[in-house]
Amino acid sequence: MKKVLFATSALVMTAGVAAAEVAVSGDGRMGMIYDGNDVQFSSRARVKFTLTGESDAGLSFGGAFRVDQESDYTAGNGATERSAARGTAGSVWISGTYGKLSMGDVVSASEAAIGDLYEIGYTDGEFSGDIEELWFLTGDGENEDQGPSILYEYTINNISLFASASDGSDNRQCGVGAVVGYDATCNVAGDDVESDTAYSVAAKYEGSNFWASLSYSKWGDASEIGLGAEGSFNNFAVKGVYLSYEDRFFGLDEMKYTAGLGASYQMDAILVEGFWRQDKYDLFGGDSEKFDAFGIGAEYDLGGGAVLAGGIIDSDYLEDTVADMGIKFSF
Amino acid sequence: MKKVLFATSALVMTAGVAAAEVAVSGDGRMGMIYDGNDVQFSSRARVKFTLTGESDAGLSFGGAFRVDQESDYTAGNGATERSAARGTAGSVWISGTYGKLSMGDVVSASEAAIGDLYEIGYTDGEFSGDIEELWFLTGDGENEDQGPSILYEYTINNISLFASASDGSDNRQCGVGAVVGYDATCNVAGDDVESDTAYSVAAKYEGSNFWASLSYSKWGDASEIGLGAEGSFNNFAVKGVYLSYEDRFFGLDEMKYTAGLGASYQMDAILVEGFWRQDKYDLFGGDSEKFDAFGIGAEYDLGGGAVLAGGIIDSDYLEDTVADMGIKFSF
Amino acid sequence: MKKVLFATSALVMTAGVAAAEVAVSGDGRMGMIYDGNDVQFSSRARVKFTLTGESDAGLSFGGAFRVDQESDYTAGNGATERSAARGTAGSVWISGTYGKLSMGDVVSASEAAIGDLYEIGYTDGEFSGDIEELWFLTGDGENEDQGPSILYEYTINNISLFASASDGSDNRQCGVGAVVGYDATCNVAGDDVESDTAYSVAAKYEGSNFWASLSYSKWGDASEIGLGAEGSFNNFAVKGVYLSYEDRFFGLDEMKYTAGLGASYQMDAILVEGFWRQDKYDLFGGDSEKFDAFGIGAEYDLGGGAVLAGGIIDSDYLEDTVADMGIKFSF
Repeated sequence: MKKVLFATSALVMTAGVAAAEVAVSGDGRMGMIYDGNDVQFSSRARVKFTLTGESDAGLSFGGAFRVDQESDYTAGNGATERSAARGTAGSVWISGTYGKLSMGDVVSASEAAIGDLYEIGYTDGEFSGDIEELWFLTGDGENEDQGPSILYEYTINNISLFASASDGSDNRQCGVGAVVGYDATCNVAGDDVESDTAYSVAAKYEGSNFWASLSYSKWGDASEIGLGAEGSFNNFAVKGVYLSYEDRFFGLDEMKYTAGLGASYQMDAILVEGFWRQDKYDLFGGDSEKFDAFGIGAEYDLGGGAVLAGGIIDSDYLEDTVADMGIKFSF
Repeated sequence: MKKVLFATSALVMTAGVAAAEVAVSGDGRMGMIYDGNDVQFSSRARVKFTLTGESDAGLSFGGAFRVDQESDYTAGNGATERSAARGTAGSVWISGTYGKLSMGDVVSASEAAIGDLYEIGYTDGEFSGDIEELWFLTGDGENEDQGPSILYEYTINNISLFASASDGSDNRQCGVGAVVGYDATCNVAGDDVESDTAYSVAAKYEGSNFWASLSYSKWGDASEIGLGAEGSFNNFAVKGVYLSYEDRFFGLDEMKYTAGLGASYQMDAILVEGFWRQDKYDLFGGDSEKFDAFGIGAEYDLGGGAVLAGGIIDSDYLEDTVADMGIKFSF
Repeated sequence: MKKVLFATSALVMTAGVAAAEVAVSGDGRMGMIYDGNDVQFSSRARVKFTLTGESDAGLSFGGAFRVDQESDYTAGNGATERSAARGTAGSVWISGTYGKLSMGDVVSASEAAIGDLYEIGYTDGEFSGDIEELWFLTGDGENEDQGPSILYEYTINNISLFASASDGSDNRQCGVGAVVGYDATCNVAGDDVESDTAYSVAAKYEGSNFWASLSYSKWGDASEIGLGAEGSFNNFAVKGVYLSYEDRFFGLDEMKYTAGLGASYQMDAILVEGFWRQDKYDLFGGDSEKFDAFGIGAEYDLGGGAVLAGGIIDSDYLEDTVADMGIKFSF
């Protein structure tokens, strides 16, 4: 027997009480990806739970995660299991007049303030390995061995302040039982392995048709200064980001900066978006190298939660031009 | 605080709008299995999500998967991880006047047109290793390394047409990132490993109290011709299937055909079902061998979603007679 | 599009029919754990499904499991995968005038009658490795290799009777396909590996402000006799347990007994709880050793499903004093 969930919150409101709730929503997509060699089918369906409540004193609290975030998916290297029930996927939060405090797999302050470049294609950039996502120094998949991170957000008038941090303990090594981490393979002495606390602070100013953000992040010896701004003019929007790194190494190569530009044009049901990204590295041995990526995509809103979308991305990382075309759904 | 979902869709209808929805349903069972040596307890509980929506132009779309299909279950051989969020479990679809197109872990055209033999027992045949399920050449667990497959269905008057295909790329080897497959262990060059595209076409004619289907499937050198028909007369139903194979090898042995018969009798709350199945192989060395399986089961509908059921199956594959008895639930 | 579930069951009742339902509820928590060396962030969010139905004759049936119980979580030793869809997490049940019969990952009769010591802290004792949980001989994670267990409960007037058992077959070795167990790595002959059936019986008497229980459990050569009682007087509650073991070995050391005491005091929104636990072992070589654990915690109910909580536990097993402080939520 099938249960149908209500798509309207009106009846819930009439109850007139602040009740704890579990909302169930979903998304899906289907289409084809050209990966530079072949055209492949690619589809998915997901369900998300959003938990909300309010204390007697008016403190809001909640949490959110997807079913697949509870699935302990193990990538090829065996290192990326994540679980909302263990604090390493999804997040929980409390929110009141003093701001909002989130814990779990939260974004860093710099990502919260600046964000990524525009997602294109029906797979929202996944057909290119999500090259539109900036590689922020903290959070964003970087400090997962330390378990849950925190993010604090406070907005007063046009200014929003952000601060985020990890806890500086490597849960993959130890902790008191599995609760502190999801992989409690303790070392002999039962002590934690110390990690460098990763933290980030950021500020954002929002005007009527633009915003600008500034961020600073630090993790061990590495640091990041971030700048981002976006403006919209009639149907156009333009976004620029610049992330400058100090002592950020990938192996022996040092990443110096990421620069990115995005532009979008919306006309009725049609949305056209594009981006450019450049990463510069100082290679071991003295040379430097730049990696560029370009992308352009278009979407057509079919209404009711269905969007026809396609995109083309050329990336120096992939050394290929890839494309996708399909439909994405929201439920 | 517990949330109770509505078991009726009436109120949703009154909203009068085509809203995207997530329906939550479930099933369960409990009982005992005699596995030929011991009697063992066997139970389970599952939850399924059904996502539905409609575009402004009347295009229907949706998706469906179970929680346990998102759990990356790894069988003993480590090869059967599947995930709805990665397109290898559950499915998504669009449907309109031109027919229905599904993508994901869909059945093949031949399976869609012909189907399996009757499921018996409270575990729906699982106590025998699901010997009532025919081993169709394509789909049905055969082409999972190629990621999502597609299935197209179109019905005009009494005739339904089916076509299905895989995409011919082995996602277990590579692809552009994890999106194309769920196991993106790329080889050095980053190229996909080519696989043989598996495809199937089928047609079905439905009369007032019978249907008959014909199918053709091809995967590499192997091919399958399928015939199926089912008729119902008063309380009786009879189903027959014949799948003829060319060049289908399991190791060095060649599978030649599967023949199957099913019969059922329904009287009020009581349902009695049985099946017979025979597979013939040409063994390496020149001999041939036939494997037979027989099963009979009975069900009693307790109402409200509970069904008392039991079955006995004798299978040459198991070299044993197995049985189950228990209750199955739907929620 | 977000679906909001109803937080009231009133409207469902008006339907006037016994409909099968899927209820969705959730919990979450966030805070900090001091693990004896470091302070770490710890958070989680979970969702639970509760399936309920009723047959035409008034037989109740249902099931329950959490999303994360379907995630096949693999601990460091690779041995603890569990899945509601395979009967090794969550449970299903039928219930009528003759009592309630549950199957799956159920507690043993002794645990059902006696229960654990009081859970303290916002992580409900997990920050200490759940030392407040008694180590009952059967069920409770001990017989998981045998797949689902059963628990029978029957209450007449003030007396409740409990009986539980495993099925005596090691599903990790074999069975008929994966249905009997979740890890169907069969041995060569396809036979099951015999395990010792673990069983337990218990009785509980409930008075107006106290209860007392007696239990007997047996698993192979080992046996357990359990005693438990709890009384409440105004705002106070006190609980005592004693579990005496025969031939229960952990390696070469024999566990002789566990004694435990718990006390709680509730005043308006404030709850203070504490416990003491002592385990005695006869070590290989002739010596004996006692392990003690103490804990005290306090909670403040913020209303609406949010509770502020903290606890301190000193455990000889951890050789450390650990603490937690945070907020726990129910949705």
